[in-house]
Amino acid sequence: MRFSAFISGPVAARPAGTHHDIVISSRVRLARNVKAHPFPGWARKADRLAVLEVVKPAVEALPQMEDAFSEYLQDLSATEKQILVERHLISREHAAKSGGSAVVMNREQTLSIMINEEDHLRMQAIQPGFQLKTVFKSIDEVDTRLEEKLDYAFSEKLGYLTACLTNVGTGMRASAMLHLPALVLDDKVNQVIQAVNKIGLAVRGLYGEGSEAMGNLFQISNQTTLGEREEDILGRLNKVIEQIIEHELNARAALLQRKTVTLLDQVGRAFGILRHAHSITSKEALNLLSFIRLGIDLGSFPTGHRQQIDDLFTETQPAHLQRTSPTKLQAEDRDALRAETIRRKLADLPAPEPPRAAS
Amino acid sequence: MRFSAFISGPVAARPAGTHHDIVISSRVRLARNVKAHPFPGWARKADRLAVLEVVKPAVEALPQMEDAFSEYLQDLSATEKQILVERHLISREHAAKSGGSAVVMNREQTLSIMINEEDHLRMQAIQPGFQLKTVFKSIDEVDTRLEEKLDYAFSEKLGYLTACLTNVGTGMRASAMLHLPALVLDDKVNQVIQAVNKIGLAVRGLYGEGSEAMGNLFQISNQTTLGEREEDILGRLNKVIEQIIEHELNARAALLQRKTVTLLDQVGRAFGILRHAHSITSKEALNLLSFIRLGIDLGSFPTGHRQQIDDLFTETQPAHLQRTSPTKLQAEDRDALRAETIRRKLADLPAPEPPRAAS
Repeated sequence: MRFSAFISGPVAARPAGTHHDIVISSRVRLARNVKAHPFPGWARKADRLAVLEVVKPAVEALPQMEDAFSEYLQDLSATEKQILVERHLISREHAAKSGGSAVVMNREQTLSIMINEEDHLRMQAIQPGFQLKTVFKSIDEVDTRLEEKLDYAFSEKLGYLTACLTNVGTGMRASAMLHLPALVLDDKVNQVIQAVNKIGLAVRGLYGEGSEAMGNLFQISNQTTLGEREEDILGRLNKVIEQIIEHELNARAALLQRKTVTLLDQVGRAFGILRHAHSITSKEALNLLSFIRLGIDLGSFPTGHRQQIDDLFTETQPAHLQRTSPTKLQAEDRDALRAETIRRKLADLPAPEPPRAAS
Repeated sequence: MRFSAFISGPVAARPAGTHHDIVISSRVRLARNVKAHPFPGWARKADRLAVLEVVKPAVEALPQMEDAFSEYLQDLSATEKQILVERHLISREHAAKSGGSAVVMNREQTLSIMINEEDHLRMQAIQPGFQLKTVFKSIDEVDTRLEEKLDYAFSEKLGYLTACLTNVGTGMRASAMLHLPALVLDDKVNQVIQAVNKIGLAVRGLYGEGSEAMGNLFQISNQTTLGEREEDILGRLNKVIEQIIEHELNARAALLQRKTVTLLDQVGRAFGILRHAHSITSKEALNLLSFIRLGIDLGSFPTGHRQQIDDLFTETQPAHLQRTSPTKLQAEDRDALRAETIRRKLADLPAPEPPRAAS
């Protein structure tokens, strides 16, 4: 499949699971390595190519990867790789790689396997909504099939061996992307982050490690991979996320009761600016779209517009904008194109109604 | 006339003179004192009352003051006095006064005479648009008539004697309120202010001495009152203002040519926020209204809306908002009422068209 055909598919499938208003997406990734080959960071080019030669056909042969998009990184442009990053299909680290690395993704963009990232294999499943267990199940099936064909580096005592110690054991990182505008507005999100950190979970921004929190989006993930079964890690993570959802819902109820004007003001301003600005940065766009999404959750806008807003979270990212332009965009042109894209897409969004408590 | 009847008249007459798009208003005030009475700052209560007894009837008897609003300051509430400040009819210093001071204003709100402010008499004429000479003529006529009845403190050598040395001589302060959004956007307004200061003129914010520049509004006035005839001061001021107008027009043309997107963005955001915000401070309101006014000047909105915007500059000030409310407003309530007032008044303002060069 060619990149353009692959990428012009839908940005994301419809969300599922409970609380998909607050949980944007669920993701699980597994780190695996092939025995008797040095880890990619230590490997010489010949070693990396040898791994590619074994792993890529094995991945392509998976029934889950029928009609897949499979490409060596050197055959993708910088913009194409960046588009995959913006869709959370490959890591920023992988996008910086070229010769000796590859990526294989299914047509639905729910399964993505990076070859020769930090480990020989980084395989992830991602789905919109709150459904960590379903997502784990789908990547676990991929892993089981691959294990039949590939000789994984595995220790009876430690579990799966990985390039970085923080992944040894299950090699699993499970995460959910949460939309927490009310906790941010109510100045309580830092309290929540601290509590989550204390129990050994990590809180990151929209684009993972080291990225800034934008659009009131926070990624919650497990830190530990050793000494705990996958099911236990997922169970613990699920429980904490359910608690955070509870906090966000309480904060929304409190805002509705005590700060109706603040809420209506934020939603109204977001609407006014997105509908009439002619230049807008990526960060501002995310922050304003976040308040439109909150407005949808609180009945200020018809729910039919939620998918449109979620799509805009991705479509207003730099590489996605670059893709629609025949010439190389400077930051200034990109901000103008971003504003134009948003104005066009939101042309039929009606002015906000006063928010109301969920029925 | 009662305060409510007086104040419910129009906020301002229609502008006249050239360049009334850039010059919001022209004002001339004269400082005068009555011989053989101590200046108000030195006077005991009995002295001040004695001056009031002579001056107030003389002012009320002026043909210009037929059907005037004439009141002792102790008979006006804090909000009423603040409304007069917001309309530039009395000074902030005068509003802080109570017993022993008075104010007399004509029905059209173009002539205002403060009694026992810093001087026994502070008389001003104010008109919308660029017409310093006409405005001077109207206050000069008042002054001539009063001089027939009152014995002014006057020195053959120095001219009119005043409480503060900076007013001795003509006792005249002439000023124009300029709207300079393009010079601000183009980061050139400080250059202009410095040049104006260098030639002995003062640049101040919307509410005179010590007030912040808001809404891209700048008041230009003469500093010198001694050793120069009124006509020469006015001629010099006129010339400088014409130069500033030229600079602003050039900056607008340059923005239209080189920064169309920035311009359209500022105008669009101002429109979007004013139409959809539910809480807005006085300062933000002025700054956004300024861009709507610029949009009108550049053809983004129908010119018929200019008066509406100019009225909102005044009607969104704190005391004007308080006037429309039966209960005492806290800052938070005022910000909400301000946003509501603006949304209601601008409900029929159409979305902005791209700006264009003046034809």
